[in-house]
Amino acid sequence: MSNQGYHVAVVGATGAVGQQMLKTLQERNFPISKLSLLASARSAGKTVTFKGETYTLQEAVPEAFEGVDVALFSAGGAISQRLAPEAVKRGAIVIDNTSAFRMTENVPLVVPEVNEKDLLDHQGIIANPNCSTIQMVVALQPLHEQYGLKKVVVSTYQAVSGAGAQAINELKTQAAAILEEKPFTPNILPCASDEKHYQIAFNAVPQIDKFQENGYTFEEMKMINETKKIMHMPHLEVAATCVRLPIETGHSESVYVELEKGHASVKDVQQLLASSEGITLQDDPSSQIYPMPADAVGKNDVFVGRIRKDLDRENAFHLWVVSDNLLKGAAWNSVQIAESLVKLGLLN
Amino acid sequence: MSNQGYHVAVVGATGAVGQQMLKTLQERNFPISKLSLLASARSAGKTVTFKGETYTLQEAVPEAFEGVDVALFSAGGAISQRLAPEAVKRGAIVIDNTSAFRMTENVPLVVPEVNEKDLLDHQGIIANPNCSTIQMVVALQPLHEQYGLKKVVVSTYQAVSGAGAQAINELKTQAAAILEEKPFTPNILPCASDEKHYQIAFNAVPQIDKFQENGYTFEEMKMINETKKIMHMPHLEVAATCVRLPIETGHSESVYVELEKGHASVKDVQQLLASSEGITLQDDPSSQIYPMPADAVGKNDVFVGRIRKDLDRENAFHLWVVSDNLLKGAAWNSVQIAESLVKLGLLN
Repeated sequence: MSNQGYHVAVVGATGAVGQQMLKTLQERNFPISKLSLLASARSAGKTVTFKGETYTLQEAVPEAFEGVDVALFSAGGAISQRLAPEAVKRGAIVIDNTSAFRMTENVPLVVPEVNEKDLLDHQGIIANPNCSTIQMVVALQPLHEQYGLKKVVVSTYQAVSGAGAQAINELKTQAAAILEEKPFTPNILPCASDEKHYQIAFNAVPQIDKFQENGYTFEEMKMINETKKIMHMPHLEVAATCVRLPIETGHSESVYVELEKGHASVKDVQQLLASSEGITLQDDPSSQIYPMPADAVGKNDVFVGRIRKDLDRENAFHLWVVSDNLLKGAAWNSVQIAESLVKLGLLN
Repeated sequence: MSNQGYHVAVVGATGAVGQQMLKTLQERNFPISKLSLLASARSAGKTVTFKGETYTLQEAVPEAFEGVDVALFSAGGAISQRLAPEAVKRGAIVIDNTSAFRMTENVPLVVPEVNEKDLLDHQGIIANPNCSTIQMVVALQPLHEQYGLKKVVVSTYQAVSGAGAQAINELKTQAAAILEEKPFTPNILPCASDEKHYQIAFNAVPQIDKFQENGYTFEEMKMINETKKIMHMPHLEVAATCVRLPIETGHSESVYVELEKGHASVKDVQQLLASSEGITLQDDPSSQIYPMPADAVGKNDVFVGRIRKDLDRENAFHLWVVSDNLLKGAAWNSVQIAESLVKLGLLN
């Protein structure tokens, strides 16, 4: 660390997540001595403001990582695959927000509230988990530590911003067209690179990312596999159904959990989660208090409410978990990893 | 039955469901000799068209049911409580779409695909189940008959039309205001008679109907209790989380089921459901074929897709179940009950 801070690079600075990364670095006052904003050749030359200064985007080429201490990647899996090793070769630690390295052995997949210590074993690349996974494991970890986790069944209610700025634009344009009874042609969602595209405004689309051979989508398998890796529970039972909805930002999750121990009350679970790092409890049915995506936008925490005991199984609970998918689900978790690296003395 | 058909009354003919009831009676060519359209004093005098004829709404008073053979009620629980017994007293069979009598002993709660025979024991009033319950039990019944049902965990994705025409208007007005960055004040959803109202456009609200003392909403308890009654399974494990979404019409449900028998394959379940009455299978991930509310609107069937085996429990499956909440969830199921009454010789 220089006296002034670290040389930070942000790759994909103009994207929905990249923009939030800059905002979060600024809000957290992360110690930055030099900031390199990198992008594809197409975006190079554009300007972006950070702490009142104007930065010109440079093309993300291997040489651009010379002297970089920490590089936050959020420009798609292909760019991470190609450039993250180049950044590491030049001495940077990479925090990668894509799915490129998440399941790679020796790449820590980190949610600081859950497995910060995994950072100690990094080999240059650290992976930021999938948005829908992050908010769920933040809520599950305290339950696991206190009662033991046996099974998790999650159904998601995901916002379009998880699919990028183009998807936000598609939702808004489409909603306006439908309200004005004008024609429209879906061409981004559910998955830009897939063959068919469907209406998202005023609809629910049970597909996020591409289908795998087992009938689950890649998003669903990400939730399943990443949760096991982050929580160090290869045998945890996890099942997911992921659904895209006409919401701009803020993912919600209906989570059913079976615990190993069966004596917890709703109040026990409420108190446990309320006192856990990174969680805000919003759970008072008598006053209609529960988490909603519209309230979570712009906030770093994971919001939990609607905590109910299963009516049949003594050891089972239902939770409703909401978070800003661009912040805790992406930008904030990445910056938080960078803060953890500083705290653990791993950045120098 | 007169030569020409039955004297049919529709109570609440101007509501979101009442309008669909008239449309469905017309489409099904239900044998009607006389049609009485009844409404509150406020709506009396309005006119409605049916099969090209103009009808003037009469006030729903006890005497209006003289001579009526079958009365379809959909004007709120209070009106059903007061007038359904009056209609029965005058010889009518009542098919009630409200929650007023659903859990009353000796009142059959009927989804024809599941428990048509319960109609044989009616005592004048027949209850039409809650929209979100109906579509779920249509999908569950074949599984129950073939494999036995042990546990059901459902998370719903419910459209605003379930809360009536005012809620549809609120969604549209609010969505337009948000797109135009204008202010708005929620005042219907999630529950008109509750204290607080929340944004529904571009949001997810985990409250449908009022909260009960156990922390579940009334909608959730309706799904739990009605499912047990319809399926004659008082000990079936059912849990529900009900969520209102910015969708005009069409409810979706993410359903996790544990079966008694553990040998079924995905293909077995697909074939079973595809050949079951009232179900259309839409399940081909390789071609991005799955049910969506926007496709289900205006159709009577229940659409099932995304059928997956749980990755951990041999006897568990995940389903995605979609239906038009105003049709199979309300109007069509009511008219279908009327058709069953005719078929079983119970209307005369």
